Amino acid sequence: MKDSNCIFCKIISGEFSSYTLYEDEDFKVIFDISPVTRGHAILIAKNHYKNLFELDDQVASRALVIAKKVATALASELNCDGFNLLQNNEAIAGQTIFHFHIHLIPRYKDDNVSLVPTPGQLDTAFATELADKIKTKLS
Amino acid sequence: MKDSNCIFCKIISGEFSSYTLYEDEDFKVIFDISPVTRGHAILIAKNHYKNLFELDDQVASRALVIAKKVATALASELNCDGFNLLQNNEAIAGQTIFHFHIHLIPRYKDDNVSLVPTPGQLDTAFATELADKIKTKLS
Repeated sequence: MKDSNCIFCKIISGEFSSYTLYEDEDFKVIFDISPVTRGHAILIAKNHYKNLFELDDQVASRALVIAKKVATALASELNCDGFNLLQNNEAIAGQTIFHFHIHLIPRYKDDNVSLVPTPGQLDTAFATELADKIKTKLS
Repeated sequence: MKDSNCIFCKIISGEFSSYTLYEDEDFKVIFDISPVTRGHAILIAKNHYKNLFELDDQVASRALVIAKKVATALASELNCDGFNLLQNNEAIAGQTIFHFHIHLIPRYKDDNVSLVPTPGQLDTAFATELADKIKTKLS
């Protein structure tokens, strides 16, 4: 499953070069060429899934295990103060390459990055109704 | 594995109430009481792991599969335009409850939320050296 117009597919195939931190049958982890912090990496599925919703469950079941493994190694080398995992789906959510990936973002006390949007307040009537609907759907 | 001072452990045990969307042996998914968008939910591990680095691999292997399942159901009910998954580790990264969880954040065209920090440029010497170190460590 490749998309001949996809930059990540070209990185996976080796047509485009990258700084590879980790690779196995399902994933390649490389440094982001536009890092938001020092050591910002991305875990890329080898097959072309557009996003989380298309991701194969078998691959999904390994993604967080590998993200943890690489993040642990990165954190220990970088001596960072925290870590974010961020996975974007669709342009409105910040997805720019439409091939499933997870951002691994080391955080530092002085990095001036904010990934904490302004919180609102929960509409309890809405929450009750929607929680029931989803529960029914998934049970 | 519970922490008697942890608000999420109290939610898992039922001591504190929540709006539950999904529950199984490993996870509970509830609405965030301070949502950043309409339908913002959090997937919480039932056992008390402080963060990703402490998370059991067995639990990690199910987390993204369940996140996908609940996000898919939420997206279909909410008719949202995108979706972010965000997982924070340590205070500097925005973690406020020190019990492993993943934010499921539906996104809408008019939501005024930004999870896209300013990108920098990759230091290629640094990337080459660190990629080699991590590769060696993980191989």
